[in-house]
Amino acid sequence: MAPVIGVFDSGFGGLTVLRELRKSLPGADYLYFGDTAHLPYGAKSVRTVAKYATASAHFLEQSGIEILVIACNTATALAFDDIRNAVKVPVVGVIEPGAERAATISKTKKAAVLATEATVASHAYQLALQRLGLQATEKACPLFVPLVEEGWVEHPVTEEVAHIYIDEIFSEHAAAREADVLVLGCTHYPLLRPLLRRVVPARVEIVDSAESTAAKVVEMLGKNSAQGKEGGIRCYTTDSVEKFRVLGGRFLGSPITHTELIDIEK
Amino acid sequence: MAPVIGVFDSGFGGLTVLRELRKSLPGADYLYFGDTAHLPYGAKSVRTVAKYATASAHFLEQSGIEILVIACNTATALAFDDIRNAVKVPVVGVIEPGAERAATISKTKKAAVLATEATVASHAYQLALQRLGLQATEKACPLFVPLVEEGWVEHPVTEEVAHIYIDEIFSEHAAAREADVLVLGCTHYPLLRPLLRRVVPARVEIVDSAESTAAKVVEMLGKNSAQGKEGGIRCYTTDSVEKFRVLGGRFLGSPITHTELIDIEK
Repeated sequence: MAPVIGVFDSGFGGLTVLRELRKSLPGADYLYFGDTAHLPYGAKSVRTVAKYATASAHFLEQSGIEILVIACNTATALAFDDIRNAVKVPVVGVIEPGAERAATISKTKKAAVLATEATVASHAYQLALQRLGLQATEKACPLFVPLVEEGWVEHPVTEEVAHIYIDEIFSEHAAAREADVLVLGCTHYPLLRPLLRRVVPARVEIVDSAESTAAKVVEMLGKNSAQGKEGGIRCYTTDSVEKFRVLGGRFLGSPITHTELIDIEK
Repeated sequence: MAPVIGVFDSGFGGLTVLRELRKSLPGADYLYFGDTAHLPYGAKSVRTVAKYATASAHFLEQSGIEILVIACNTATALAFDDIRNAVKVPVVGVIEPGAERAATISKTKKAAVLATEATVASHAYQLALQRLGLQATEKACPLFVPLVEEGWVEHPVTEEVAHIYIDEIFSEHAAAREADVLVLGCTHYPLLRPLLRRVVPARVEIVDSAESTAAKVVEMLGKNSAQGKEGGIRCYTTDSVEKFRVLGGRFLGSPITHTELIDIEK
């Protein structure tokens, strides 16, 4: 039997992780939960994020998943332990895999991290990278998510904003000047990867935590666990189903067919 | 006795309405509710916005307000009737006062409106202006709120984004070409007014719905109802109190001293 993989995010960004998972494990069945009634998590407090994330994790567990991927950097940063304690299935976050990949690549042992305000404030990447022997400089990029959601992924304004953020992190922080790896610490950011590649210094390799997280799940389940016939994707959202379909398709890279409205505040 | 005025918004933007109210009615006591755990409302559905807005309105009513100002364009657009039916005190929204002001000013009887995605999708301004004999062209500006919250109110990037939005509305829509009034249909936008004044064609007058709404409340309560000794402001928020203090002060234009955390999902 193909495994049922649960993927959770505050909104649409986690679909970039689902897209990567599907490349490696096409035969798995996927349940995706986007807590869009409460997005964005990026500027909310630990207490609030933990409450919504554990309620969503419970829902997915009751729906029969065998493994849960927290495809949201903010939820992983703020509430990973809460979520792990709330469910019985194995839980994979997006931060460890991204940090591990950065540690493998880096020669200078210095990394830069772009993320939301809440992820940066938690210093989750800094701590994860520190445990792996890397010094990390983190930078909050609050405009990237709305720019991606506006669809401006190859827009001059986005390029200008990227220059401002990237210049700030690489020129103003002494440690970042020697960084040879940049971690995209938000699941919206992979959509900006081609643009960022042009803006980020050539010596710096870009690590996409969506990719690294998918690789981690494949490692846990085994590559042969879900090959063959393509499995299904069921999406659950806490706000407009119509909006989820339209915006979600952009992140998944293919149309979204099955979406249901769910209330986790009951 | 000075009146107790309740002001509700999904976040901080409504503080621009409170600031205007205070100029005219300094002696009133103000209770401000910012539903920051659920912000932004701008991209959420009617059902979700109505649920949060009525819960917040109930809380303010139970706290002793005599009048409720819905200082949030999205909540007014999507849930005004729900809120009015949920409470016994008089309710003032931000849309009617802004539309009335525009109708008074306009000679061409054509208006342009900038607002969030949800407010535009509701066509609440278009309908309100139509009832007053004006033809309105609406434009969603989803990047303005995050730009204001990043503090980039006088930033070249914001000016470029403003040029894109303003050019789109005034050049691509035949009716807007004759508009002589532009309504700021989001309580975040007054912070961008000086920048917008430089970008918007000189023949077009800018109407700030925060100002018009304050004027409406003064008209209802009477200017003499709250003069004399300055009243207090108590703020309630559904997410981080610390963040509310820091960001809120920027919108209010003065420091925020009393803030309490409230849970409306119980």
